[in-house]
Amino acid sequence: MGSTVQDVCIPERFSYAIDQHLVFNYTGVQAWPLVLGIFGRPGDGKSFQVRTHLERRGVLPVSINAADLESDRAGMPGKLVLETYEDAGHRIDEGTPTVLVVDDFDTTVGEWAQSTTTVNHQQVLAQLMHLADSPTRAGDRSLRRVPVIITGNDLSKVYPPLRRPGRMRAFPWLPTTEERAHIVTGILGTMLSPSEISELLGELEEAPIAFFSDLLVEILAESSDAEVRRHAASLPRLILPRSAEREELERVLPTGRLEGAQVKALALHVWHQRMLATQSYVGE
Amino acid sequence: MGSTVQDVCIPERFSYAIDQHLVFNYTGVQAWPLVLGIFGRPGDGKSFQVRTHLERRGVLPVSINAADLESDRAGMPGKLVLETYEDAGHRIDEGTPTVLVVDDFDTTVGEWAQSTTTVNHQQVLAQLMHLADSPTRAGDRSLRRVPVIITGNDLSKVYPPLRRPGRMRAFPWLPTTEERAHIVTGILGTMLSPSEISELLGELEEAPIAFFSDLLVEILAESSDAEVRRHAASLPRLILPRSAEREELERVLPTGRLEGAQVKALALHVWHQRMLATQSYVGE
Amino acid sequence: MGSTVQDVCIPERFSYAIDQHLVFNYTGVQAWPLVLGIFGRPGDGKSFQVRTHLERRGVLPVSINAADLESDRAGMPGKLVLETYEDAGHRIDEGTPTVLVVDDFDTTVGEWAQSTTTVNHQQVLAQLMHLADSPTRAGDRSLRRVPVIITGNDLSKVYPPLRRPGRMRAFPWLPTTEERAHIVTGILGTMLSPSEISELLGELEEAPIAFFSDLLVEILAESSDAEVRRHAASLPRLILPRSAEREELERVLPTGRLEGAQVKALALHVWHQRMLATQSYVGE
Amino acid sequence: MGSTVQDVCIPERFSYAIDQHLVFNYTGVQAWPLVLGIFGRPGDGKSFQVRTHLERRGVLPVSINAADLESDRAGMPGKLVLETYEDAGHRIDEGTPTVLVVDDFDTTVGEWAQSTTTVNHQQVLAQLMHLADSPTRAGDRSLRRVPVIITGNDLSKVYPPLRRPGRMRAFPWLPTTEERAHIVTGILGTMLSPSEISELLGELEEAPIAFFSDLLVEILAESSDAEVRRHAASLPRLILPRSAEREELERVLPTGRLEGAQVKALALHVWHQRMLATQSYVGE
Amino acid sequence: MGSTVQDVCIPERFSYAIDQHLVFNYTGVQAWPLVLGIFGRPGDGKSFQVRTHLERRGVLPVSINAADLESDRAGMPGKLVLETYEDAGHRIDEGTPTVLVVDDFDTTVGEWAQSTTTVNHQQVLAQLMHLADSPTRAGDRSLRRVPVIITGNDLSKVYPPLRRPGRMRAFPWLPTTEERAHIVTGILGTMLSPSEISELLGELEEAPIAFFSDLLVEILAESSDAEVRRHAASLPRLILPRSAEREELERVLPTGRLEGAQVKALALHVWHQRMLATQSYVGE
Amino acid sequence: MGSTVQDVCIPERFSYAIDQHLVFNYTGVQAWPLVLGIFGRPGDGKSFQVRTHLERRGVLPVSINAADLESDRAGMPGKLVLETYEDAGHRIDEGTPTVLVVDDFDTTVGEWAQSTTTVNHQQVLAQLMHLADSPTRAGDRSLRRVPVIITGNDLSKVYPPLRRPGRMRAFPWLPTTEERAHIVTGILGTMLSPSEISELLGELEEAPIAFFSDLLVEILAESSDAEVRRHAASLPRLILPRSAEREELERVLPTGRLEGAQVKALALHVWHQRMLATQSYVGE
Repeated sequence: MGSTVQDVCIPERFSYAIDQHLVFNYTGVQAWPLVLGIFGRPGDGKSFQVRTHLERRGVLPVSINAADLESDRAGMPGKLVLETYEDAGHRIDEGTPTVLVVDDFDTTVGEWAQSTTTVNHQQVLAQLMHLADSPTRAGDRSLRRVPVIITGNDLSKVYPPLRRPGRMRAFPWLPTTEERAHIVTGILGTMLSPSEISELLGELEEAPIAFFSDLLVEILAESSDAEVRRHAASLPRLILPRSAEREELERVLPTGRLEGAQVKALALHVWHQRMLATQSYVGE
Repeated sequence: MGSTVQDVCIPERFSYAIDQHLVFNYTGVQAWPLVLGIFGRPGDGKSFQVRTHLERRGVLPVSINAADLESDRAGMPGKLVLETYEDAGHRIDEGTPTVLVVDDFDTTVGEWAQSTTTVNHQQVLAQLMHLADSPTRAGDRSLRRVPVIITGNDLSKVYPPLRRPGRMRAFPWLPTTEERAHIVTGILGTMLSPSEISELLGELEEAPIAFFSDLLVEILAESSDAEVRRHAASLPRLILPRSAEREELERVLPTGRLEGAQVKALALHVWHQRMLATQSYVGE
Repeated sequence: MGSTVQDVCIPERFSYAIDQHLVFNYTGVQAWPLVLGIFGRPGDGKSFQVRTHLERRGVLPVSINAADLESDRAGMPGKLVLETYEDAGHRIDEGTPTVLVVDDFDTTVGEWAQSTTTVNHQQVLAQLMHLADSPTRAGDRSLRRVPVIITGNDLSKVYPPLRRPGRMRAFPWLPTTEERAHIVTGILGTMLSPSEISELLGELEEAPIAFFSDLLVEILAESSDAEVRRHAASLPRLILPRSAEREELERVLPTGRLEGAQVKALALHVWHQRMLATQSYVGE
Repeated sequence: MGSTVQDVCIPERFSYAIDQHLVFNYTGVQAWPLVLGIFGRPGDGKSFQVRTHLERRGVLPVSINAADLESDRAGMPGKLVLETYEDAGHRIDEGTPTVLVVDDFDTTVGEWAQSTTTVNHQQVLAQLMHLADSPTRAGDRSLRRVPVIITGNDLSKVYPPLRRPGRMRAFPWLPTTEERAHIVTGILGTMLSPSEISELLGELEEAPIAFFSDLLVEILAESSDAEVRRHAASLPRLILPRSAEREELERVLPTGRLEGAQVKALALHVWHQRMLATQSYVGE
Repeated sequence: MGSTVQDVCIPERFSYAIDQHLVFNYTGVQAWPLVLGIFGRPGDGKSFQVRTHLERRGVLPVSINAADLESDRAGMPGKLVLETYEDAGHRIDEGTPTVLVVDDFDTTVGEWAQSTTTVNHQQVLAQLMHLADSPTRAGDRSLRRVPVIITGNDLSKVYPPLRRPGRMRAFPWLPTTEERAHIVTGILGTMLSPSEISELLGELEEAPIAFFSDLLVEILAESSDAEVRRHAASLPRLILPRSAEREELERVLPTGRLEGAQVKALALHVWHQRMLATQSYVGE
Repeated sequence: MGSTVQDVCIPERFSYAIDQHLVFNYTGVQAWPLVLGIFGRPGDGKSFQVRTHLERRGVLPVSINAADLESDRAGMPGKLVLETYEDAGHRIDEGTPTVLVVDDFDTTVGEWAQSTTTVNHQQVLAQLMHLADSPTRAGDRSLRRVPVIITGNDLSKVYPPLRRPGRMRAFPWLPTTEERAHIVTGILGTMLSPSEISELLGELEEAPIAFFSDLLVEILAESSDAEVRRHAASLPRLILPRSAEREELERVLPTGRLEGAQVKALALHVWHQRMLATQSYVGE
């Protein structure tokens, strides 16, 4: 059941925004901004869909993440960004379309109101702005133009100068009802009919796309009760290098599926559980 | 009277969630998340029940605690997590089912809103997310997949990216009335009848499970009044290497038990005391 | 379509304030302040218009930016400001009219209420105040007087002593309806009639000038749908050194234009999108 | 008049809680918690009564205080706690019943909400929890079990994991009216009749026990007016090595006593003064 | 037009307070405080009038400013204050009446409530208090008594011990209507009649004195429109070493003046502009 | 006019509290606390009266001040306190009655709520508490008992353990109407009749004692108008080594006095000025 690139349904509006960004940037149209900023609520698949679509287009994503930026040598993060950009450019020169991706930009690089005091974050922002203004040159070196895509939950927290005209194109990702149905069909389409899907989405309007991906795990759990009970009692055997038990399970477990009505009941139950789980229990 | 693994009653719903997590992970089902997050109010036995059930299943828990993470060399905590995971994997290779456990995750690793500024905590989170995304490979090294279990009181304070689909399965632990009765029976069942237990639980609805474990100590205290008074007057003799007094006490003290009515009265008294004790007295 | 210095329409009131500042300073009239402070809301083109007008006047802008000031050696930023001022003076001596520019002064140098605790920022402010009081002398060295222009969003946050008489002339930039129409005509005049422009401005009263520059990118996107779809499917070819595809695109893409009605509809749509994009989606 | 161990009246309920803790711990009953936490409002004699009762029982208190914990070498406080515990154990092995005491635990070790960020405090808490879980073993070394007593004003601020079952027994110290009378009789019993004491306590319900100890000093002051006036005029003589004046005073001064009515009037006056003294006078 | 010491009108009440401070201090009257604290709202000319009056009296002002105090070597600022005081004393010994001046004391030395945590500021305050208590002696060295004058906006924020009797004489500077008219006559008297001045002051009651000094610059701008337009178009020529243009401008520009009615209209316009300029535009 | 020790009137209640503290401490009465804490509103003469009375009694005050405590070597402040105490003890051994004084204890040592995090302050508090508990012994060394006097404005901010019985005697200093008249008579008694004094105090109920000391300076200023005006015009002459002008002034200036009615009018005027001066003028 493990979802692969082929199964995933990405709404046209989303993939087209990426296509535009790639074509204009690879063509080198000066007026087109170097950075595409995709912003929306958590769990609606921004990062995942970016990567999936890039994979489909044969584009290599090169990431910068929070840990990279937390280098303990002041001044390094700025250089890291430039080097990553430059390396990505070499990949393009070698024939591989490449993109620089920063996920969760607002939490990774920090909210700009606070980041003004952090040397590290300022270096990153300064370097990104410099690249946005001058995508093909850094000091004496000439650079290959590399499209940049950032995702996040709150555009208003991104350092305003980076949002200015010419630097970043903002793409707010709020899937419509149809787009949500389209995506969820890619996830649960083998178990639910179109009308069951739209019914389920109607009842779980607050649920982000991620919830339905999560549901696959619960379906897996629900449909393999007997196997779990049997093998839990003999775990040492299960972990043996080439145990027959494990080989059987490897075959059986991932194929779990439920009837439409069961899926719907499970979805509502899990949603309710999740509401309970995200409460705080530190009152005592 | 000291409670042993055999006496402890763990509700089926709780132990089954762990079983699922172990079986799917040891089998290596990709879609199943590496991390199980058990969240609920303090004192309801999460950590204790995890360890007890693991012991019953013959699974070795390997812990990471706050002190380990407060290494004074920046950059080390991330490595520590990876090394601990890797070592745990070796134990599995050697035939011992092993689990990585982080108790009180939200206080140990810190609330994510604050942890974004702490290099140490970010390294830990980054490493855990990396493992969750890639449980069998770190850089060039291939790793054995090791199930991870975390407990805590406030899932909403856990770094959101770690809660995302595929990374963590959330299990909210709020014992039902029946489950509470089941657990307390394991603790006080030799002194209270089932109806006395349900009556007591009805009067102490606010009391977490831990309160009833605590009660064992008070019962011990209450039932050994004479011995305490006698020996308090001659402590130097009590601490002698092989004093007859101590040997007698070692036999007598731990066997303390009370009648059901006494237990109930004591429970209500201790609960009242506890309410007084957790007030703040710094007003003056 | 890429806008050049020639296309840009700068309102007379704005360019004249800069002219005054240049003439009086280059003439060396003592009573005239060394610093011109241009303050207004973000996106109304202050920095861009300053640079464009300086370019038209043949004046070289020398910038100081946040990254320069975040030198890690305490005490350096003050020296940096002085050296930059001195170098700018040498350029004037060599025959090039030169100006020292600090964009986003309130965020770059920091709000004064907080900057009193930052050694770096205090050094910068102290040096600027010293230059404002003594534009032609620093210690033993005689200096060439160099006009200084700063831009920002909140004059009230600029260190009060720097705002004092003789040090800074404040120029609040709040374009009038006519001035806005004049500027936007420079941007969209080839696609919209004067009445369409005034109509559009009437409907988008909240939109800063920057929004209309941004719009050029969206027009570009809207008018090149076919090319994007075609080339997105074959990106590896697009990035080849001298691909025919790229050469064709380089010719076609930047010439995008739309009819007036399309521009207006697009403007309203993009404005609506932007309203959505600047919401925060971190609630969950 | 100086109060000695013999004069002090400690309520039975208080001393018995300590006796229980000592007997169970010295006997080595596993289920009994290693730590006794005595919590109540400041000034009600917790620390003083602990030490007095230990002295009566012939038990040596070994203290850890705030200054010890503020070692400037990170990582040391944890070791310090362990070493102190280990040394105390040696004393027991040598035949001296010994107890580890931490006064004002909540202010000494810090409130847990804040202490999570302090390496020093975390080390102390981690070490204490480790000892509570494993009182007779640290790494390879076997340890002698040493009872621990902590006092404080706010149990709710103590790091929750340390309050968990098996680790700490909480004893809230709120003396009853009878207990207060009992204690105050030990202090003022030679000057006030039982009915005067209960009357005085009725009028000063808010006064902590410490207030009545303080009163002894005021009685001393009140009853030596003549001597003070005489000697204040010739202080240089008073400080001579073996002055007759000093020898006389050494005999006379400490014997001050007043009539019951005077004591009561003085008590009310001093209480009123104290109310004035603890106001803040920084308004100006 | 550039205002010189001769033109400036300082109200008698202000200059007399300085005279008193100088005479008493130079005479060495012990009871007279060493420090004169002049406090009032910003822009009412405190610092400027102090310097102007000192210049008229032939007194040399020696300043301590914020940048001096931000020495990066802890412990130095205190020494700096002492050395500056000592040097000033040498100037007096050499025959030059000298005064130590600290402008904007409350922002320079910081608000006392916060400064208690800053070693640098405490050293400065401690040194100043020491000098105030002992103006002619520091350790073994004998010092010449040097009057100290500080200015600021908020006396209540000055470290209270420094405000105590014998240390500082407080002089609140709130110019009366007559005093304001007197000062403004010194600034605009050649262009406005006495009745025009009092009328203007009546309409701009909120305007600080500094506003009217500022106005001189605007008058200059308003009256040189033709020259600015002409020369803005040929700036490179204007900056040539000995250009005829510049020499002409140097003669013409500073002589700008307007009619009374024009001055008044300009004043009201500039005041309105300033109100707009000091708004915050960061809302977006 | 300069006030000397002889003129100062200290209320009996105040000086007697000090006498008691000295006599009991020098006699070495164990039950008497080592520390006397004098608390009240600022400006009511606590520190000044302590020093004056000590001088009258022939007692040497040894001070610890904020600057001493801000040693930059962690751990030193605690030692400094001990060394100062020890040195003071040597002075007593040599025949000079000596006292350790800490003025403004609450601001010097810091408010306890905050000081718990400052190593320096904790060391000071720890050392003081240690001395209070054991005034004649520190480690192996025997110490001479030295009375300690601290003053401050807010007893409630003093570290509670230091306020405990046996450690500190609290003396709230709130002068009564009669006591205020008594003190003010010592200041202004040569110019005002007793009825004028009580009338003045009635009108200036809010004024602290310090205000009336301040008044002496204003009387000096008011009564030397002619001399100030004459000499302000020729300051360079005034500062000459042995100018006749200065010698004359040295004789004339300090003798200034006014009639009772003038004093009263001046007092009311100065009080009003002070109210204006302590307003904040940073609004603009």
